[in-house]
Amino acid sequence: MMIVLATDFGPAGPYMGQMRAVLAAAAPGVPVIDLFSDLPPFDPRRAAYVLAAHLEALPSDLVLVAVVDPGVGGPREAVVVRDHGRWLVGPDNGLFAPLVRRAEMAQAWRVPVPESASPSFHGRDVFAPVAAALACGAPPAALMPLHARALDRPDWPDDLAEVVYIDGYGNAMTGLRAATLPAGATVRLGDRVFPRVRTFGDVPPGAGLLYENANGLLELAVNQGRADRDLGLTLGQSLTVVVDS
Amino acid sequence: MMIVLATDFGPAGPYMGQMRAVLAAAAPGVPVIDLFSDLPPFDPRRAAYVLAAHLEALPSDLVLVAVVDPGVGGPREAVVVRDHGRWLVGPDNGLFAPLVRRAEMAQAWRVPVPESASPSFHGRDVFAPVAAALACGAPPAALMPLHARALDRPDWPDDLAEVVYIDGYGNAMTGLRAATLPAGATVRLGDRVFPRVRTFGDVPPGAGLLYENANGLLELAVNQGRADRDLGLTLGQSLTVVVDS
Amino acid sequence: MMIVLATDFGPAGPYMGQMRAVLAAAAPGVPVIDLFSDLPPFDPRRAAYVLAAHLEALPSDLVLVAVVDPGVGGPREAVVVRDHGRWLVGPDNGLFAPLVRRAEMAQAWRVPVPESASPSFHGRDVFAPVAAALACGAPPAALMPLHARALDRPDWPDDLAEVVYIDGYGNAMTGLRAATLPAGATVRLGDRVFPRVRTFGDVPPGAGLLYENANGLLELAVNQGRADRDLGLTLGQSLTVVVDS
Repeated sequence: MMIVLATDFGPAGPYMGQMRAVLAAAAPGVPVIDLFSDLPPFDPRRAAYVLAAHLEALPSDLVLVAVVDPGVGGPREAVVVRDHGRWLVGPDNGLFAPLVRRAEMAQAWRVPVPESASPSFHGRDVFAPVAAALACGAPPAALMPLHARALDRPDWPDDLAEVVYIDGYGNAMTGLRAATLPAGATVRLGDRVFPRVRTFGDVPPGAGLLYENANGLLELAVNQGRADRDLGLTLGQSLTVVVDS
Repeated sequence: MMIVLATDFGPAGPYMGQMRAVLAAAAPGVPVIDLFSDLPPFDPRRAAYVLAAHLEALPSDLVLVAVVDPGVGGPREAVVVRDHGRWLVGPDNGLFAPLVRRAEMAQAWRVPVPESASPSFHGRDVFAPVAAALACGAPPAALMPLHARALDRPDWPDDLAEVVYIDGYGNAMTGLRAATLPAGATVRLGDRVFPRVRTFGDVPPGAGLLYENANGLLELAVNQGRADRDLGLTLGQSLTVVVDS
Repeated sequence: MMIVLATDFGPAGPYMGQMRAVLAAAAPGVPVIDLFSDLPPFDPRRAAYVLAAHLEALPSDLVLVAVVDPGVGGPREAVVVRDHGRWLVGPDNGLFAPLVRRAEMAQAWRVPVPESASPSFHGRDVFAPVAAALACGAPPAALMPLHARALDRPDWPDDLAEVVYIDGYGNAMTGLRAATLPAGATVRLGDRVFPRVRTFGDVPPGAGLLYENANGLLELAVNQGRADRDLGLTLGQSLTVVVDS
């Protein structure tokens, strides 16, 4: 069992640590792993496609706490999802929509928000305590069952043809799963079509490429360069899928 | 028991890890949590007000190692403070001044600096070994009692009407505790007065706001925006407290 | 026993976390420490001199996983080194060259790459599983002995007279070990010669300095300033060693 954190908090500041302090006190001995502290800020839609892809490569015996939560303190619900032995904890703002749509037998619950919770930091005061309880095998009694489908966002696509995440190297992940597209498919950005290759070294240093990343998403990169800077890629940019014919 | 690190080292480089390696070897099994790696650099005064506020929200059974230490290797002392079951370890440069002033019964000790300590990295060579010993219930015999009041800085205010920290979202924490001001108090920055609200979503996206953050400090933010960029906020900026009449 | 990670992945993104998830599952209870997530990107040569210096200050009972790996998925080998009780795991691209050259009795092995490994993320799929096995005292049976000398790069110098790393403060580490130079040696950058001092406070705030850092490397810094910005220092800049006569 491990607890995995995925947020838009940034790596340096106090918020990851404050959640970790709650977890260390309430779930002693359970390893806590920062998966992301740089999910697209205030952007649960794009973060959702990033999360769904990365969760598949993780061990299934985990509790994920996901916090991209611009509506914190407002009317959005706090929820728990159970799928394939995994627990997911976070806000009901679409962050779990692709996960729930792709899951076969997900279950979901609503989490009551205690009066004492800070209206601006449910990560620490709502989600972390619930995650600790789940990791200890003691789901809170106050969870209220929901239809998991209610967490889906029916108007969101199965795959998102946009740049959904830019990593520390400047590589740009798309919301497109390689496995759902024809084998020769690539993407077009404006006038530019990128060669679909296996790994960075398949093109010369400085050249752009498209490849299936280690989490199954199509990703734009520049061999030994920064795709964000060199190709002018930004979060949310639209891409066109091109299928060889 | 947990060990909490709060520094100005930055999240990526070797210094947090080198302290953690010392702690893992000397206090095996004790969880170590990064609370801050981005306290105001070289600025123990502003860092002190940030630290004091964040420590209150943490479990009390902890050892805090705080390192904002521009005078490392010079004449400033290394100190340990005990307050409410917490141990604090770090330099005597004001970093614990607000904590000591607010504490009722703090005790303090001077830590001798071993000859072998690097003159530029007491975090690793002085503070971490002492923190590990304290976390293991074995305070070093060489600690020398001090008057805790000696760690205060009498010319520093109880609350600091300045921007003392900018977080990963661009939100600007002030050194003002909401609880010490009248209920309707807000702040003015130049010509601009900010509406005092409960949480981000109480103003439209893009609008500025002032709210009590999850650690009791007044904080300037922009709903779904970056207050630092959008409002031109910088560390150390002076604010004027405005009380409705 | 601890596992130490040193990469060019950046602190925020998913790659450190994905390696940690593998390690938590396969080496439960072994502490995992991020030493670097900001080694010079795509630059195993400069990273190698940084790593060699920092490894010396760490406890010897460790497994280091080092990933600066622009050739991932190509013909470069995956290797394990054993030296002074330490295990090192990573790509054979020079990253362990200074370590192997300085070691007296290093042993080395080639690690077979499983078919199932992602061609772009050997950190997660090759190095982390091997590191977990080593940390658990169970070296993989498939390791194939190599001559450790084969991991050296004979055309690389013993010490590298360049800026090899810039830390979170803007301090610029060189690849020069203080112990291998005459006591009065300093460095010249263009027209500028830096005073060799013991620690930051030995020069006025804002002034440049050269000092032996806590890991034995000569380092350029500005007291309470940013040497990278204030002195125009960049990764890879060449320095001239100046010996007083």
